Amino acid sequence: MRFFSDNAAAACPEVLAAIGAANRVDTAYDGDALSTRLDGALSDLFEREVAALWVSTGTAANGLALAALCPPYGGIICHRTAHIQVDECGAPEFYTGGARLLLGEGEGAKLTPETVAGLMAGIRGDVHQVQARALSITNATEYGCVYTPPETAALGDLCKARGLGFHLDGARFANAVASQSCAPADLTWRAGVDALSFGFTKNGGLSAECLVFFRPELAEAARYRRKRAGQLLSKGRYLAAQILALLDDDLWLDNARAANRAAARLAEAAGADRLVYPVEANEMFVRVTPAEAAALRAQGFDFYDWGPNEARLVTSWDSDPAHVDALAAAIRAL
Amino acid sequence: MRFFSDNAAAACPEVLAAIGAANRVDTAYDGDALSTRLDGALSDLFEREVAALWVSTGTAANGLALAALCPPYGGIICHRTAHIQVDECGAPEFYTGGARLLLGEGEGAKLTPETVAGLMAGIRGDVHQVQARALSITNATEYGCVYTPPETAALGDLCKARGLGFHLDGARFANAVASQSCAPADLTWRAGVDALSFGFTKNGGLSAECLVFFRPELAEAARYRRKRAGQLLSKGRYLAAQILALLDDDLWLDNARAANRAAARLAEAAGADRLVYPVEANEMFVRVTPAEAAALRAQGFDFYDWGPNEARLVTSWDSDPAHVDALAAAIRAL
Amino acid sequence: MRFFSDNAAAACPEVLAAIGAANRVDTAYDGDALSTRLDGALSDLFEREVAALWVSTGTAANGLALAALCPPYGGIICHRTAHIQVDECGAPEFYTGGARLLLGEGEGAKLTPETVAGLMAGIRGDVHQVQARALSITNATEYGCVYTPPETAALGDLCKARGLGFHLDGARFANAVASQSCAPADLTWRAGVDALSFGFTKNGGLSAECLVFFRPELAEAARYRRKRAGQLLSKGRYLAAQILALLDDDLWLDNARAANRAAARLAEAAGADRLVYPVEANEMFVRVTPAEAAALRAQGFDFYDWGPNEARLVTSWDSDPAHVDALAAAIRAL
Amino acid sequence: MRFFSDNAAAACPEVLAAIGAANRVDTAYDGDALSTRLDGALSDLFEREVAALWVSTGTAANGLALAALCPPYGGIICHRTAHIQVDECGAPEFYTGGARLLLGEGEGAKLTPETVAGLMAGIRGDVHQVQARALSITNATEYGCVYTPPETAALGDLCKARGLGFHLDGARFANAVASQSCAPADLTWRAGVDALSFGFTKNGGLSAECLVFFRPELAEAARYRRKRAGQLLSKGRYLAAQILALLDDDLWLDNARAANRAAARLAEAAGADRLVYPVEANEMFVRVTPAEAAALRAQGFDFYDWGPNEARLVTSWDSDPAHVDALAAAIRAL
Repeated sequence: MRFFSDNAAAACPEVLAAIGAANRVDTAYDGDALSTRLDGALSDLFEREVAALWVSTGTAANGLALAALCPPYGGIICHRTAHIQVDECGAPEFYTGGARLLLGEGEGAKLTPETVAGLMAGIRGDVHQVQARALSITNATEYGCVYTPPETAALGDLCKARGLGFHLDGARFANAVASQSCAPADLTWRAGVDALSFGFTKNGGLSAECLVFFRPELAEAARYRRKRAGQLLSKGRYLAAQILALLDDDLWLDNARAANRAAARLAEAAGADRLVYPVEANEMFVRVTPAEAAALRAQGFDFYDWGPNEARLVTSWDSDPAHVDALAAAIRAL
Repeated sequence: MRFFSDNAAAACPEVLAAIGAANRVDTAYDGDALSTRLDGALSDLFEREVAALWVSTGTAANGLALAALCPPYGGIICHRTAHIQVDECGAPEFYTGGARLLLGEGEGAKLTPETVAGLMAGIRGDVHQVQARALSITNATEYGCVYTPPETAALGDLCKARGLGFHLDGARFANAVASQSCAPADLTWRAGVDALSFGFTKNGGLSAECLVFFRPELAEAARYRRKRAGQLLSKGRYLAAQILALLDDDLWLDNARAANRAAARLAEAAGADRLVYPVEANEMFVRVTPAEAAALRAQGFDFYDWGPNEARLVTSWDSDPAHVDALAAAIRAL
Repeated sequence: MRFFSDNAAAACPEVLAAIGAANRVDTAYDGDALSTRLDGALSDLFEREVAALWVSTGTAANGLALAALCPPYGGIICHRTAHIQVDECGAPEFYTGGARLLLGEGEGAKLTPETVAGLMAGIRGDVHQVQARALSITNATEYGCVYTPPETAALGDLCKARGLGFHLDGARFANAVASQSCAPADLTWRAGVDALSFGFTKNGGLSAECLVFFRPELAEAARYRRKRAGQLLSKGRYLAAQILALLDDDLWLDNARAANRAAARLAEAAGADRLVYPVEANEMFVRVTPAEAAALRAQGFDFYDWGPNEARLVTSWDSDPAHVDALAAAIRAL
Repeated sequence: MRFFSDNAAAACPEVLAAIGAANRVDTAYDGDALSTRLDGALSDLFEREVAALWVSTGTAANGLALAALCPPYGGIICHRTAHIQVDECGAPEFYTGGARLLLGEGEGAKLTPETVAGLMAGIRGDVHQVQARALSITNATEYGCVYTPPETAALGDLCKARGLGFHLDGARFANAVASQSCAPADLTWRAGVDALSFGFTKNGGLSAECLVFFRPELAEAARYRRKRAGQLLSKGRYLAAQILALLDDDLWLDNARAANRAAARLAEAAGADRLVYPVEANEMFVRVTPAEAAALRAQGFDFYDWGPNEARLVTSWDSDPAHVDALAAAIRAL
């Protein structure tokens, strides 16, 4: 009964079926019948013209987005615990050609206009210091919290006022949208976001991420950079097929709702005192003693420790309800 | 009836079945049960200890291999028409941090020890000039020719004598091995090759390439570079599954033999006078007038022009024998 | 009697005096009284508003200029024997973040609109190939020839039509201007040049090069890149002092004329049959047998061989007239 | 009466004389009679064989040193206020190809083995996180404190144990040595330092820094990188001349002692309560109210504010004793 990561989840049946259906001779790279539908499908979803590029990982999507928004000599403001900072082995530096991450603080891995402005206030505006040129936030965050549309828009306003590109790492964008039942546009371009790493892999995909530019003119350079990074797959139709299958009939939202519901059930079982952050998506951080963690493991539950007195539990679209119920009961019984 | 590219071919049934079988919850990245089998499977195939890393494209495999063999201030000798030079949008420069490709000439996209040595003789050995630090060849070549084991070993000897790393772009390595019925080792480490980009995508895979280091100590840095390049897929088991399925029972060789046979049939139909290069793998370049090319297209055959009086025909593991027979007949009838 | 290189020449007395005069406490970096005069002094010289940045080497000036004009995924067209290609150890790749040099041919190291257009015609306009984004020429060229204002303007027109940035490597820009008695503007922005590496070191400076942007908006990013490259000297006033001293009263032109005259005297002595290229600046390439070269060396003349039957002779602002006369006589006597 | 920065100081007479003496025709780049003496001169000073490369700025020396010690995918531990972090516009990222600075804390801008080990303990040893590969300290520090030989050796031991390269930013190395009257070797290789950025510019030079490798085998790659970075000056003899002049008869130490003495006099005047850090070199940070700062400025003293209630005072080799006395008196009178 594994609650390690939604990265470990299976691909959903519709995705596998779509891959099978795409398994015919077609044009290579992104000239095929499926890839050429992506721009339109994402434009429909976001209620405006966008440019959409599939890539094989979220790290690549983030790197390409940041390279589009920040020059090599610039800085990218992000949270100290952002995935781009702690879990991508310097991919932002690699993709941008050496830009620097500028680290902010904030509860639940969230930044606010105040923390961003405060961070910028500490930078002298001369050529000796790396100047902030972009902001990157993650929604849902690395700690399972969400930015609301107004919170996002407040950051977007600051970006506009200060000349920052605005990137949204949406590895769990589906969970953030599902959690708030808002329009995808409200968490992105209507709030000032320029580029979104739209994750599908954790949410029922096999391996498919989509980089969405809300300023489509940014996509031209990104297409060259994608090729150059070895991210233009020669049989790209299989990636497009996954994305289209998940967009179809809002399957992406159904999957995310399932994951969120499972997390909510666990959160309810844990109770407020055990929760380190509010549980707003499909990740939760629970205060447990080492003995309690061991007890859970002894009952067959697997998960990551997060420091000595904390555990991380992640649910996914295919979390087995029986496993979730069992874990909920085990947590209650602690 | 498409003869554009083996990049456009389908994935073979065994590969799809393996992906389906891999579709269970498992450890993320490359810690799963399948990925951890790769080193062993490739070591068996190559009859020595190797380190094997899956990646999503041949461009990424090439880039990572070159970064392992050449410093940012070095040069990589390759053929003027090598894929890394003409079809990867500067990926070698990106992955290595700015190394330079040094271009050699040679019939059929092949280099010889003489051409490599001649190229090096033109470089002054001072800090003002980019010094050659690696050699990269492609087997089968971009023009459908193969390097034999002795030809490869002669280049390997030169590399050893001159301190060059030796990379083999094996996007069509299967076709080269199948063409010569030699041991994979004979075309690689026994001939001095340090790193191989072992292609599976064109040969029945969906999206799976394998970077093989014959000096396993090179893999440690490459694993960091892979992550940093956004090439460490979170559900890597699906890549490993494809590779293992193709290695199983030598399916990779069966597939390559099928593609080679189809090309041989077309070559026979074309006759020596029409062939620009010997047809030794699954690509052929045929002299046709624009009128002849138009006539073939009018009969439903699709392919790329290669200059005004030449056509490129590529077969693949799943080339329909009926299509091949029809094209052979049509070529004969020109 | 050394005719190796103008790189080996002394600094002229006015430059040394200016350094002495600058030797007082002042503001660091480029905030001092001299550095802040550069924009104005170069704007006067070029008859339009420019932005001017001192750097310590021509390689750095070239690298910064190219980084301003070409993205990391782009290509820079230059002559096969351009200094940026053969003598800067990959600095263009380093400064641009991995752009590629695209090599053209042409007599006397000169490119024409035809050669540039021909080179571009060979590039497919898709993401798989490195697209040309800039053109770099050298005036006077590496073979001692000059581009005229109309020749430059023809290239500039092509750049404008094809969306290429236009860089001029002017390590010997002074010699080119002196040779033609034209306005500096005629060889630069009036002919479409965007950025000039204006060399002073070979022409009487100690160590001072000036990067001049004719589109001043390009300078902002370049100032960050200069700092980042370790090219923002903390006592920049000494660099500014050299440049201002050489601009004062057209000393830069006087120096260049002296060097050109010395070369012309040698060229006359050599005669047309011995000259590989027309001698239009301060470099000459002379056909000599190994025996003749040895004979010249036996008389005390030092120079570089340029292949087995050619010698390169370079004069400078401080070439001793007696040495020049002696060499002229010796050449005549061969 | 300027106490802004030793960057703004003049060059000392011996340096100017040496430049004049070097002003003859000689071999270009670093093949001249002076540059070729550097390795020997520095080897004598450090009592072991070293490799020494002149460059034009401390930023370049630091960048080249770090590129020699840390791969692009690695991390460099330094203090949060290290010059490489706060004042070089991302030069470490540029020179290394995207390595990351990992920031530690410590009084007086000093790191300890405990802070370094603690920082490393927070890094998971997997490919997702940037692994520490080098340590960089500054001596004298950015806050005017010094590392003693034992303190340096303790860090060197840690580096050896943990596989970290060890870089010393010695922009004010002279002040650190002069302050402690120790052997230069005791603060460098005997304490485990691999590479030193040895600053001469702030200490009486015009523009000359020396990168010293105590593992001479590191220099080969660095020489290529230097050229590639545009740091191989074509008339390098003028840089070598400055360094040799300052090494001659320990002029570098005399200059540093003069600067340190001036700072000590000011520190004594300020008294312990006003000093933010111990004054061990030529920089001091003094607690002053805005009114007090204004009062000092009204008397003709110029300096930088360091936050609202602090001032930074920097002395140099040529600080006018009368100015120093006047400032000391003015501080006492506050």
